[in-house]
Amino acid sequence: MSNGNENFVREITPQSQDYSQWYLDVIKKAELVDYAPVKGCMVIRPYGYAIWENMKLGLDRRIKETGHENAYFPLFIPESLLQKEADHVEGFAPEVAWVTKGGQEELSEKLAIRPTSEAMIGEMYSKWIQSWRDLPVLINQWANVVRWEKSTRPFLRTSEFLWQEGHTAHRTEEGAEEETLKMLDVYRDFVENDMAIPVLKGLKTEKEKFAGALRTYCIEALMSDGRALQAGTSHNLGQHFAEVFDITFLDQDDERKYVWQTSWGVSTRLLGALIMVHGDDRGLQIPPKVAPNQIVMVPIMPKNKQELVKEESQKLYDELKKDFRVKLDDREEQTPGWKFNEWEMRGVPIRLEIGPKDIEKEQVVLVRRDNGEKIFVKRDKLHDKLEEVLADIQDSMYNRAKEYLEDNTRVAKDMDELSSIIEEHKGMVKAHWCGSGNCEEHVKDETKATIRLIPFNPNTGEDCISCGKGDSKEVVFARAY
Amino acid sequence: MSNGNENFVREITPQSQDYSQWYLDVIKKAELVDYAPVKGCMVIRPYGYAIWENMKLGLDRRIKETGHENAYFPLFIPESLLQKEADHVEGFAPEVAWVTKGGQEELSEKLAIRPTSEAMIGEMYSKWIQSWRDLPVLINQWANVVRWEKSTRPFLRTSEFLWQEGHTAHRTEEGAEEETLKMLDVYRDFVENDMAIPVLKGLKTEKEKFAGALRTYCIEALMSDGRALQAGTSHNLGQHFAEVFDITFLDQDDERKYVWQTSWGVSTRLLGALIMVHGDDRGLQIPPKVAPNQIVMVPIMPKNKQELVKEESQKLYDELKKDFRVKLDDREEQTPGWKFNEWEMRGVPIRLEIGPKDIEKEQVVLVRRDNGEKIFVKRDKLHDKLEEVLADIQDSMYNRAKEYLEDNTRVAKDMDELSSIIEEHKGMVKAHWCGSGNCEEHVKDETKATIRLIPFNPNTGEDCISCGKGDSKEVVFARAY
Repeated sequence: MSNGNENFVREITPQSQDYSQWYLDVIKKAELVDYAPVKGCMVIRPYGYAIWENMKLGLDRRIKETGHENAYFPLFIPESLLQKEADHVEGFAPEVAWVTKGGQEELSEKLAIRPTSEAMIGEMYSKWIQSWRDLPVLINQWANVVRWEKSTRPFLRTSEFLWQEGHTAHRTEEGAEEETLKMLDVYRDFVENDMAIPVLKGLKTEKEKFAGALRTYCIEALMSDGRALQAGTSHNLGQHFAEVFDITFLDQDDERKYVWQTSWGVSTRLLGALIMVHGDDRGLQIPPKVAPNQIVMVPIMPKNKQELVKEESQKLYDELKKDFRVKLDDREEQTPGWKFNEWEMRGVPIRLEIGPKDIEKEQVVLVRRDNGEKIFVKRDKLHDKLEEVLADIQDSMYNRAKEYLEDNTRVAKDMDELSSIIEEHKGMVKAHWCGSGNCEEHVKDETKATIRLIPFNPNTGEDCISCGKGDSKEVVFARAY
Repeated sequence: MSNGNENFVREITPQSQDYSQWYLDVIKKAELVDYAPVKGCMVIRPYGYAIWENMKLGLDRRIKETGHENAYFPLFIPESLLQKEADHVEGFAPEVAWVTKGGQEELSEKLAIRPTSEAMIGEMYSKWIQSWRDLPVLINQWANVVRWEKSTRPFLRTSEFLWQEGHTAHRTEEGAEEETLKMLDVYRDFVENDMAIPVLKGLKTEKEKFAGALRTYCIEALMSDGRALQAGTSHNLGQHFAEVFDITFLDQDDERKYVWQTSWGVSTRLLGALIMVHGDDRGLQIPPKVAPNQIVMVPIMPKNKQELVKEESQKLYDELKKDFRVKLDDREEQTPGWKFNEWEMRGVPIRLEIGPKDIEKEQVVLVRRDNGEKIFVKRDKLHDKLEEVLADIQDSMYNRAKEYLEDNTRVAKDMDELSSIIEEHKGMVKAHWCGSGNCEEHVKDETKATIRLIPFNPNTGEDCISCGKGDSKEVVFARAY
């Protein structure tokens, strides 16, 4: 479904000229997403969805390895259920889509399209959990959710998006805290190792935490324009939902107690991070572990050798597809040069060129998307070489992003310094903060930067950047998506 | 989350006493589903969802092997879009859930929660398809859909359900017809081979076809109470949607033409078929290929040998889990006998018992769920034996169901015969039909049986069972879910 006669690459606005337009151009040209005829909704096209499928595989495996099972809960949440937890409804009500009519009849009670499923799951857990033997309950759900957003942007903020949401119940406070941190680290491991995106881990402030949670932990990534992006959150819900949904169990000591809960989620938003961390002016760059095509083969077919090259390419393709996600682009209506641009724009990690001379020499030409390096590889060494280069690309992409994150993490001693760093470089800025909501708000008003997270074991001792109060904690500020 | 002190098995109503209650008991006791606090919606619990996940794997593989890609389209369909195809809206409007409010604002146009996605996808395809080179478009979606049903039943008919829906566009009428039949056969292959459910293939009547289709093909299965269940449908949409959504392409002859489309789907309804084809008075029976646990290990642990048996069981479990989906049930608070009942009720194909004497003799006891056969197997032969028995159970389950289908497919020469067969046995009944909607309606009024399908290459020549018209086609009648 590519529109064969245009030169897509030239149509991508350079990052330096207009980063935001660059992002939209890449998404559109690489056919990741299209706009739907519904406000704020997107169509995830096959190429974009194939990345999401690979991401799901890697994350689902980790979720199961840590003892969780998948389940499916209803899309609809009755209004009365959503309203049970006061903070929760206050946080979510403004962005809920409501079903008021089923078939021809007006509903007696409005139904919320789930913005998240704590309320529904709380209701079910109160039926399922009776005894300490039933705990922990470790359930995850892959689903669509809806949040009626005013201003939207593909992947980053859409009215409907896809995600997974884990919901667990534990016997003790420690059990819930351990789970919250374990899943945060599962997210870090997945995002760093599969998506090649380095992240910072830490705690959200009271102001930024999930509506209804006791504490929210997060992983934060840095986009190549210097803005931060929340890449995943893990919430210790305490007993807030257990109390309002009456989720209790009979403990070994014969006392009836409330469970301790957690919830945690990542979404298609991560695709936005992938684009903005790795992309460049030529388009996408997709890490090998999640790339729909790890390798694209482009046969070079002069008229008099067309049959030979086609045949040899097909043979090689049949061989490679057993072990790699490989695509053979042998369309005759496009030139090799056009294909090189096209697949670079689509971010395929490795291109293999194969022409009559290569066939003669029993070699192929391997070109890396990440650094442009061109390597001649003998056919009998190709399999090992591909494995080696794919692993190296995965590492290099991570290392480059890590270096960028480190280079763009700065320290500010006072408000002036913070303002000028944010204005000039954006990036992550470490500065001390007293813990008050007023100071948090003040910094935001002055710089448009928010506290992205409070690191684990933060440095302490310096004065608050806003009010000057002593013995404050070092936190991370940034402008964020 | 099982409630340890009850004996579930005794709580299952026998099929012969009340088949419908038996179904609900099994679903509840085996923890496949629970009722949600929303009319007609179900929660698919982890054990039920794990079967669905295995089904998805098997079907998704086949869908991809036949050249399709997955994508994701929005949940919401604007009213104006849904109304474009007249038959389609007439068929679906009565059961649509409508969103009328987003956040605090009333929407200017109501949004349907998708009952199916032809309208949304038609709108997108009209943007994506320009040239004959863009064809065929072969896209599938795994998603939730909503149909506001008056009377519901877990898996079989619920307001929200999970499914996959394929949507393809082709250059020619033949291309679309070929695709429609190919996917019908993919369904047959999947349902017969993975779910061990034999099916009949054929064409739906005009009255029973999909709203907006040119022709609907289906696979039909026979439940163990003698009622038929539509297990999957594949629609040749002709150019109906192409015309109203203006999906055209420039053909090689430089003429602009409408595409030919298909759509096809199967849903969580198939789980209902699995329960009703294979289940018995002891509970579920799950074919090995889709069983969450193919094997359950029950250690027999007398007090003085507890440590030894636990240790050996754990060792064996670690070995087996590399190649099988195996569960070790070493709970100490339950007796082996209780566990035998529990896992039989949950339909696990193979139980392995391991006690002190078995350890001494370097053997385990293998018990089949399908026929109760008990086999002593030497430890060093166990792996091969398990593979062999799992394959044999899969085949036996299919063969038993196939035999049941054959035994319960009868021929009726006239209305009296049809009525008495349906009344006495239910099952599938072959009878001749002239093709008129009136006769179809008449048979339904008299017998509550509908035409399930018109076979490919039907027998012809006999008189219509209803009006007596000569040279009619042999079709299949049944009472259906």
